[in-house]
Amino acid sequence: MSKRLRSEMGSSTADRIVVRGFDLSQDLIGNVSLGAMAFLELKGRLPADRELAVFDAILVTLVEHGMTPSAIATRMTYLGAPESVQAAVAAGLLGLGGRFGGTVEDAARMLQVGGSAAEIVSDYRARKQQIPGLGHPIHKPIDPRVPRLYEVAAANGFSGRYVRLMDEIAEQAKQALGKALPVNATGAIGALASELEIPWQVTRGLAVIARAIGLVGHLQEEMREPLATEIWERVDAEASGGAGPAPTE
Amino acid sequence: MSKRLRSEMGSSTADRIVVRGFDLSQDLIGNVSLGAMAFLELKGRLPADRELAVFDAILVTLVEHGMTPSAIATRMTYLGAPESVQAAVAAGLLGLGGRFGGTVEDAARMLQVGGSAAEIVSDYRARKQQIPGLGHPIHKPIDPRVPRLYEVAAANGFSGRYVRLMDEIAEQAKQALGKALPVNATGAIGALASELEIPWQVTRGLAVIARAIGLVGHLQEEMREPLATEIWERVDAEASGGAGPAPTE
Amino acid sequence: MSKRLRSEMGSSTADRIVVRGFDLSQDLIGNVSLGAMAFLELKGRLPADRELAVFDAILVTLVEHGMTPSAIATRMTYLGAPESVQAAVAAGLLGLGGRFGGTVEDAARMLQVGGSAAEIVSDYRARKQQIPGLGHPIHKPIDPRVPRLYEVAAANGFSGRYVRLMDEIAEQAKQALGKALPVNATGAIGALASELEIPWQVTRGLAVIARAIGLVGHLQEEMREPLATEIWERVDAEASGGAGPAPTE
Amino acid sequence: MSKRLRSEMGSSTADRIVVRGFDLSQDLIGNVSLGAMAFLELKGRLPADRELAVFDAILVTLVEHGMTPSAIATRMTYLGAPESVQAAVAAGLLGLGGRFGGTVEDAARMLQVGGSAAEIVSDYRARKQQIPGLGHPIHKPIDPRVPRLYEVAAANGFSGRYVRLMDEIAEQAKQALGKALPVNATGAIGALASELEIPWQVTRGLAVIARAIGLVGHLQEEMREPLATEIWERVDAEASGGAGPAPTE
Repeated sequence: MSKRLRSEMGSSTADRIVVRGFDLSQDLIGNVSLGAMAFLELKGRLPADRELAVFDAILVTLVEHGMTPSAIATRMTYLGAPESVQAAVAAGLLGLGGRFGGTVEDAARMLQVGGSAAEIVSDYRARKQQIPGLGHPIHKPIDPRVPRLYEVAAANGFSGRYVRLMDEIAEQAKQALGKALPVNATGAIGALASELEIPWQVTRGLAVIARAIGLVGHLQEEMREPLATEIWERVDAEASGGAGPAPTE
Repeated sequence: MSKRLRSEMGSSTADRIVVRGFDLSQDLIGNVSLGAMAFLELKGRLPADRELAVFDAILVTLVEHGMTPSAIATRMTYLGAPESVQAAVAAGLLGLGGRFGGTVEDAARMLQVGGSAAEIVSDYRARKQQIPGLGHPIHKPIDPRVPRLYEVAAANGFSGRYVRLMDEIAEQAKQALGKALPVNATGAIGALASELEIPWQVTRGLAVIARAIGLVGHLQEEMREPLATEIWERVDAEASGGAGPAPTE
Repeated sequence: MSKRLRSEMGSSTADRIVVRGFDLSQDLIGNVSLGAMAFLELKGRLPADRELAVFDAILVTLVEHGMTPSAIATRMTYLGAPESVQAAVAAGLLGLGGRFGGTVEDAARMLQVGGSAAEIVSDYRARKQQIPGLGHPIHKPIDPRVPRLYEVAAANGFSGRYVRLMDEIAEQAKQALGKALPVNATGAIGALASELEIPWQVTRGLAVIARAIGLVGHLQEEMREPLATEIWERVDAEASGGAGPAPTE
Repeated sequence: MSKRLRSEMGSSTADRIVVRGFDLSQDLIGNVSLGAMAFLELKGRLPADRELAVFDAILVTLVEHGMTPSAIATRMTYLGAPESVQAAVAAGLLGLGGRFGGTVEDAARMLQVGGSAAEIVSDYRARKQQIPGLGHPIHKPIDPRVPRLYEVAAANGFSGRYVRLMDEIAEQAKQALGKALPVNATGAIGALASELEIPWQVTRGLAVIARAIGLVGHLQEEMREPLATEIWERVDAEASGGAGPAPTE
């Protein structure tokens, strides 16, 4: 009566490890890059060079954003559990939710679910929701990542319908709202991921993959030049007005 | 050939939910307190009043410690993923590792693994390790939680061999190191948990249970009076020397 | 220019620890139960007896649900990281999202946001969304937890407007859909939490607090009678069709 | 009096985002691969081709191991919180602790802390600890990943002192224990990471980075062909002997 459990991700025997149909030792180790391996995991096949160029560009963009809330959470967790590098990274990843990591997903969903730019802008305005992928509070007048991402896409033949749709949405929004709202990095990434036919449901995973790298970077810096105790002591002293933190709690 | 999976934690049928052998609706809801329910989960039986008094005292002690690194991690995670209360609490719990939550476990293990106070102190000194459960950088000369915890234990008949052993270790450490190192809250909790015959491997779980409550408290305060963005902006501005955080990353 | 950081959760000096305005050692340890301490964290004051009875009943209901996906995730995590009890509990809590822990939040939000039962049912039907807090696939014809929760509420004077609204929603739904959809445990908990004036945004935190206890219970059972390896080996053998798991990965 | 907060990870101004000293848009996006970006995060400089070849080979090896306990935890978490891809990945990463992800760290520490092979083997035997990086319960007589990793290292000039030390430890262990214990994948990875001068404290982070990719892969498969409910129902039915799981808990 029960359903058969089946997975195509990987398997192993005494002398062979198979990942997505490839022999890990013979076909992948030493033959493919990390980005190509990630592409294989998500698409079930190795990328063409032009696909890998765009895929790597997306992920490279998402690795590091400086001292984000996620990086602070990772450093705080490491302070309490220095034996658990994996827990500190996990704590940081947990902040890639609706407000941060979710924005790439929102942009990709908007593009993939369909409709013309005019319909999309009008729908968001009717729901009084912010249109994903447009505008930036710091990077003005334009987000410097966008022209570069578009350049990489164009050079590799991926400046297609989703890039056009994203641009048309920005243009429609400008007309509807009466102010310039240029495409930002999450909008460009949403468009490029869509060009690569990555389902929008998985695009938040791209942010997770990239940020895991960035958070390990922050952890290494924290090991060498710790900031967490200083941040904790300042916040605690000001917020609770007490004698400061109790190191053994 | 395979092992039978068996769990005694709980089960349900159409008209009945059983938890640890009790009918949840008939025996537990409305009849037992939260502390008694936690005791039942860990011991497989309901507590006597005097057991519950000590068990509740342990947990009450561990709920709230102000603006700890865990509380900061929880608030940072909520900033990025406001839709995931459970993720924000989980991020804070991840910091209850070797440096914080682990100290109760260290004290309980020391007491339960056995040996005389003299042997234990001499072993720790030989390994150049700090003796768990002794001394406090802030709460001097004594940790105010300890006399109260001891009072509750004595009033309920749990001032037994583990409390004595913890006190003897403090006395031996004082003689060996030539300075007063009074029992701190984690030492007292390790002793009381041992008196209740809670295995040392589970004692870190007591800190996890209690702190989950405290972190939900911090989250509610963060919802009403947000601090996370202010902490982030200050840390980012100072640490990276840049123009400040980018709200959409 | 910056905002002052302020928290009322807790603070400490050399001889005193303050939690929510109370002296932890003098006022709380040994004087209040775990449930009362949780109420204090959320409400900023200690509960009256009749409030505590309902609050404890809610939490006791949510502690243990047997071998849930969360419990399996906790056990799997413990298998890989037996040194990190806190990480295993955190992994289990992460599954209290939209499908599970979120249902209490959905019911409380529905009740607190307002409108008559007829309006609410009609709104959910218009949006083609399932009405939270109604029906149960296993517990038929009624969820045995509901009459007991209602009994506790009535006995303590909390059978008020939210309980009535929840019942009216069930009645309206029955008429609109032509089949009985009695209030389930999450509906009753949403109503009782609303009676206690706990904001719906925090109600998911009640599930997190309670389930943290249950997951520590599962961990202790896993320590004594491990199931995780057996589950892993069966799933891996069937799903990947390989030679089974590689213990060092 | 307080310490200055400083981070070199990244910063941004209106028209420029800097990562580890490089202009993200001009220097990195479209110019460097994902592996090179990860190398930059950890080392503060871009890799030479021969370094990248070895670095990528390490990470590619660690991405996917089939239906591991981590993958099961990720799928269980997704079942409960399908809106939180990041939480599902985080739950899986939390299992990369002492038993799994920690083994690479153990091997790298053993190699980097120093001593001759004879001293190392004798120390581990005196402490009755298993020597990290040797033997494998499935991959016999040899782990197929090892010759390939060694080949990549040799081809790129990284078959140096750490690779030799790892091999000497295997040889000494064979003589001391009277049975063949060939170097396994974690031993080879520990050696290659040491050749790249990656501190042992960071090596667990390599497993975290790689596995984050693999877990996103599992999540995508789970979205398309869900296994979690079937696993849950089977485990619950057998373990609790009840009527099966309650979908709304």
